[in-house]
Amino acid sequence: MPPRRLTVSAMARPRGRDSDDESNNDNILRCLSCQEEYDTDDLGTCRECYLEVHETEEDLKSQIEDLKSKLSFLKLPSPILNPYSTDLILLPADEPSPAPIPAHKSVLVSRSPVFKAMLENDMTESRSGTIKISDVSFDTLRAFINYLYTAEAPLDNQLACNLLVLGEKYQVKHLKAHCEQHLIAGMNWDKAIENYAFAYQYNCKQLQQVSLEVIMDNMPSLTQNEYYAVLVDSNPRLIVDIYESYLIKQINSAGGIRL
Amino acid sequence: MPPRRLTVSAMARPRGRDSDDESNNDNILRCLSCQEEYDTDDLGTCRECYLEVHETEEDLKSQIEDLKSKLSFLKLPSPILNPYSTDLILLPADEPSPAPIPAHKSVLVSRSPVFKAMLENDMTESRSGTIKISDVSFDTLRAFINYLYTAEAPLDNQLACNLLVLGEKYQVKHLKAHCEQHLIAGMNWDKAIENYAFAYQYNCKQLQQVSLEVIMDNMPSLTQNEYYAVLVDSNPRLIVDIYESYLIKQINSAGGIRL
Repeated sequence: MPPRRLTVSAMARPRGRDSDDESNNDNILRCLSCQEEYDTDDLGTCRECYLEVHETEEDLKSQIEDLKSKLSFLKLPSPILNPYSTDLILLPADEPSPAPIPAHKSVLVSRSPVFKAMLENDMTESRSGTIKISDVSFDTLRAFINYLYTAEAPLDNQLACNLLVLGEKYQVKHLKAHCEQHLIAGMNWDKAIENYAFAYQYNCKQLQQVSLEVIMDNMPSLTQNEYYAVLVDSNPRLIVDIYESYLIKQINSAGGIRL
Repeated sequence: MPPRRLTVSAMARPRGRDSDDESNNDNILRCLSCQEEYDTDDLGTCRECYLEVHETEEDLKSQIEDLKSKLSFLKLPSPILNPYSTDLILLPADEPSPAPIPAHKSVLVSRSPVFKAMLENDMTESRSGTIKISDVSFDTLRAFINYLYTAEAPLDNQLACNLLVLGEKYQVKHLKAHCEQHLIAGMNWDKAIENYAFAYQYNCKQLQQVSLEVIMDNMPSLTQNEYYAVLVDSNPRLIVDIYESYLIKQINSAGGIRL
């Protein structure tokens, strides 16, 4: 069906259409935003709301620019590239000949309550100016320290997991949430059980919830998932949780089933 | 004139109106955003653009939340309230018994190329760990240092001027721009000539331009402005610039005048 043609005022017409315009007689509904014709089935907003939303959008974009500029101002240079006035060394303790990573006590203390307790009190690390961190590679530790200075990390799935573990250990909530969102964005059935177990271990409520939803959507394939057998051996209690959730879902959706 | 009533599809009606609704026969143009009736004189956008803009707005708001969260993570605690591991003292040199303000070399170096040159090279300040700053009060210096850590300052007109001077001296562009915007937002005729001279002295192009526009709009009162006589004495060259700008404006608007 072609668009219905109705009389509209000059206010609603695109700019450049005046009484001399040859198409002036085409009195049609025309969108102020995309300038396309539309019919009454496709009505959106009135003129006032359009102008208001347009203003809001400009305002939000301007806020974003301000915030980006502040962020760029507040970012600190990586101490690995620029170790000026560093007063601390971090070592990935399990590496055979660990390369030291320099840092500033003041930055670590401001980002992590665990580092704060460690460094502000008279503990070994504070006195020696060295923190040994186990179960971590040089690359992960470097990415962790860089994040504390810049709030940025070039995440892939593995690095997101590794940094989330450090985020949990050192209570760097912002980093942990950043990694959790990365894992949620990359979620699929292949990763769902593994992510579910990981989220349980490191206390990531949202990741655990999203993983469980994906598992619930794929219950007929549950036992074929590569990670199922691993989890049955390593943490059968979590597998029981999955089955219990499934049962509750069944009961709720069927309005009660016979057991 | 009451709104024209036209047939619209169920898609454009507010939710909750279905075939059983008693007002179903009121087929009117209704805005999807404010839910108010409108007539064709007030057409805004089509449905598709409304939904798109709505999505964009949600997206922009989510970006703002992310950026705010990053900012909050990157802000450093004021070294005045929390002097842990500071390695530098700043002194407002002109005060009779100046109170020292502690800071971290690494932070000052990252925020200001002037501090960077001063501290990274083997200069007196670097060796002594003390920077004396003249022509500044304790309160201004404290606000300056706090800004370097937090990107925040509770500005009034006077503090904005004082911090802009420090922003120019130490090349902290972000602070300078922040103060300039504050002065522009508070601009009026009483402040215009003073702001014009101030902007010229501290190289603030935008503030100078806005001040000049306000002066041009108030030329009949020029000589009555409180700051006019001051500037005639202190910097007559700037007063000449104002008159030259006025003359050019007159020539342009009149399409040429006889001199």
